[in-house]
Amino acid sequence: MTENNRHPDQIPEIISFSPIGVIHSEHTLAQQTPAQPVFAQDCQGTLEVFPPYAAGLKDIEGFSHLYLIYHLHRAGTPELVVKPFLQDTEHGIFATRTPLRPNPIGLSIVELLGVSGNLLSIRGVDILDGTPVLDIKPYAARFDHILANRSGWLDEVDEQTAFIRGRRQYKPAKQ
Amino acid sequence: MTENNRHPDQIPEIISFSPIGVIHSEHTLAQQTPAQPVFAQDCQGTLEVFPPYAAGLKDIEGFSHLYLIYHLHRAGTPELVVKPFLQDTEHGIFATRTPLRPNPIGLSIVELLGVSGNLLSIRGVDILDGTPVLDIKPYAARFDHILANRSGWLDEVDEQTAFIRGRRQYKPAKQ
Repeated sequence: MTENNRHPDQIPEIISFSPIGVIHSEHTLAQQTPAQPVFAQDCQGTLEVFPPYAAGLKDIEGFSHLYLIYHLHRAGTPELVVKPFLQDTEHGIFATRTPLRPNPIGLSIVELLGVSGNLLSIRGVDILDGTPVLDIKPYAARFDHILANRSGWLDEVDEQTAFIRGRRQYKPAKQ
Repeated sequence: MTENNRHPDQIPEIISFSPIGVIHSEHTLAQQTPAQPVFAQDCQGTLEVFPPYAAGLKDIEGFSHLYLIYHLHRAGTPELVVKPFLQDTEHGIFATRTPLRPNPIGLSIVELLGVSGNLLSIRGVDILDGTPVLDIKPYAARFDHILANRSGWLDEVDEQTAFIRGRRQYKPAKQ
């Protein structure tokens, strides 16, 4: 490895994907959508997988949690330095989970409550209604339970502050 | 939520992104690239962030681990039902981490060893050399340390088998 890019002619300028599904949730306003699943444990929703991809769900019901990778379709113009939802201090976009990313890709770990055909019932939904989903991966403690000992600026935010700010004025809909 | 898609005309057919960086690693053969970071703890590499995005790295050095989201640029034709690396049983692609996904998007949690300008030194690299990177997000135990109590078919694979198969014949390069 040198400071030269060894692959200057191999990196495409554009990489394109097609949605494999869509989120149905009660979140219709970005500013009232919780910032993370941990702040949305009372939010349930549905991931509708488009029929051509439904066969890819085989055996997914065995997993208690899933990663969803999706398009932050209502994110605004990207910014490289931002104040995140949880703190009034500027940080690089890649040191935050803020949506205004160069590539507006969202990542959420949701609880899988059940599967009915091509519909996944999920909990911990911090995702706007109508969000296009690009991929689903099983969460596995043996891969993903990392003993991370430093969480940067997030270590400066106490639990109560994080919850209040991360909740983002979300009020559960009347059932 | 009904079985009808409520957003039929809002879901774009194509969503495009541009790489923000590239992986430099010793992995040049897909079949010898470990399947997960947990099977690649002795693999170090570099994430080169392209200069226009380098300002987005501010304060990233405070985090011990990062999510990398990248294009599985050498994945073959997608398959909806696959035998994953760790087991000789067919499962839906969305119940596995196998690369042959409808949208070939990779997700790895790597350890951040250091930052030098636009270069991130990383460990636990299970990513092919030359892989285009789409996003970097900080891993945070408070968000991502999920008490997942069911990991589906993965719960059937013992640790030794998982390590041997997940290692995928990787041999560390001589230093």
